[in-house]
Amino acid sequence: MAPHRPDQPATPTVEDLLSRIAFDRDGLVVAVAQQHDGAGEVLMVAWMNREAVRATVAEGETSGQVQRLVELRIDCDGDALLLRVDQAGVACHTGRRSCFFTALGPTGLETILEVEVDPSRLYAKGG
Amino acid sequence: MAPHRPDQPATPTVEDLLSRIAFDRDGLVVAVAQQHDGAGEVLMVAWMNREAVRATVAEGETSGQVQRLVELRIDCDGDALLLRVDQAGVACHTGRRSCFFTALGPTGLETILEVEVDPSRLYAKGG
Repeated sequence: MAPHRPDQPATPTVEDLLSRIAFDRDGLVVAVAQQHDGAGEVLMVAWMNREAVRATVAEGETSGQVQRLVELRIDCDGDALLLRVDQAGVACHTGRRSCFFTALGPTGLETILEVEVDPSRLYAKGG
Repeated sequence: MAPHRPDQPATPTVEDLLSRIAFDRDGLVVAVAQQHDGAGEVLMVAWMNREAVRATVAEGETSGQVQRLVELRIDCDGDALLLRVDQAGVACHTGRRSCFFTALGPTGLETILEVEVDPSRLYAKGG
């Protein structure tokens, strides 16, 4: 832990967090992005390294698409993060709201979410 | 794919699913368990092997705690599953509803969920 200095605002939080994360042998931790309100849609799962975690907390964004970080949680054994975000538009590179658009139904895998944005437009904006 | 037999209900769904999962080099895939209704709490993240996925779909349970599987989704690149479940009681071995009971707050990590069940009771029931 960083030494506490009473004369200035303490900002030990990212280091506290990083010390609790059980990064895997590749230096990654799994992160689940969830819409923070409404039905709490799970938007995507990503793997983050130490710098990505640090940048996410510092900048409040989690990907090229716009996901403003509302709250970050860590699980009981430190090997997963939950990023509660405010997602603007689509999270998936296919142009769908969530990457979890395929469900196992009685006759096999089914596509349950529509494409909302032409994928070719998603990466043309320099975002 | 299993051969289709028109004279009996087809059950190719698990094999369809398994063929789409990008298991990692340890033969595991990450699975996010989420309460299927309400605010859609993310309950836990676990790693599953092929047999665990098969058993989860067949039996509809995902852990020793009682999580009835309502819907299974797979993400766009096949390396994460989302298990939408009906969680009875607590999901975390600490006796909390969710494993994500630690949040990053302005002064560091904070415990945001109460213990609901004495952990020593969770594993005494032979569940």
